[in-house]
Amino acid sequence: MMNPESPTAVMATDAAPRTKSSIYPEPFASRMRQRQKRPLGDLFGLTNFGVNHTRLQPGGISALRHAHSKQDEFIYILEGSPTLITDEGETRLAPGMCAGFRAGTGNGHQLVNRTGDVVVFLEVGDRSPGDSATYPDDDLAAVLNSDGRWVFTHKDGRAY
Amino acid sequence: MMNPESPTAVMATDAAPRTKSSIYPEPFASRMRQRQKRPLGDLFGLTNFGVNHTRLQPGGISALRHAHSKQDEFIYILEGSPTLITDEGETRLAPGMCAGFRAGTGNGHQLVNRTGDVVVFLEVGDRSPGDSATYPDDDLAAVLNSDGRWVFTHKDGRAY
Repeated sequence: MMNPESPTAVMATDAAPRTKSSIYPEPFASRMRQRQKRPLGDLFGLTNFGVNHTRLQPGGISALRHAHSKQDEFIYILEGSPTLITDEGETRLAPGMCAGFRAGTGNGHQLVNRTGDVVVFLEVGDRSPGDSATYPDDDLAAVLNSDGRWVFTHKDGRAY
Repeated sequence: MMNPESPTAVMATDAAPRTKSSIYPEPFASRMRQRQKRPLGDLFGLTNFGVNHTRLQPGGISALRHAHSKQDEFIYILEGSPTLITDEGETRLAPGMCAGFRAGTGNGHQLVNRTGDVVVFLEVGDRSPGDSATYPDDDLAAVLNSDGRWVFTHKDGRAY
């Protein structure tokens, strides 16, 4: 039987936004104020991967530019034209475009909304344990601990 | 570095369709003729989960109604109004709606296009090993073997 608390289906834009806008330490968390994530997979009790419906206001960014060691990521653009930044440079995206970020490449990625319109996209990431994230443009490092919680430090290991 | 064979981003509808329309044995494979899957995650070398851009012509079905033991699934409707069939009955979907199918519930799911218009959706599924699938409405059982290949049998174990 389906969990009675899980809906059969939902309109993604009706899903509740995440209450905390970012788990980054400052000064990075404040950079995420133009970003709103609606967790979708969690609504249905999914545990192997997460799916967010994410909205970037003008000037918003999807995340600090980062790369995962173990977890794959995938995005699909629903509205607007964000700029994807990777080691290869900048790529302007449009609705119907998608990109994937394979774990372990070290190639950091980030979406930036440089337009005056809202950007909306789906983002998928798995929950592989033992993950870590590197941030080529910022003094930040992250490790997923055994409780499933991200621990952020400076690149030299000092706590934030 | 990104694999030089991987694109940075693609328009999903430009991705190549899967050449084989179904891996089911007959008579089930023929039921999938109105279904076209474009694998997206594979384009970027993702291995932890797969993402397909899937199109159902009028009369098409997403799959036989089925449930996975280990792998979660998620769908997001891009175009059209398919009918989602689960143990709870039928739910009419629309663009912007999503649903998740948690592993291990035994609650079979399937999308059916009963309209005269095309249905397009994204489907996400992880690649957890040791998976199996049950088919409440058909004489079929499936086990994911250690090579990552699905092996289909009758429910009593006889080969197809």
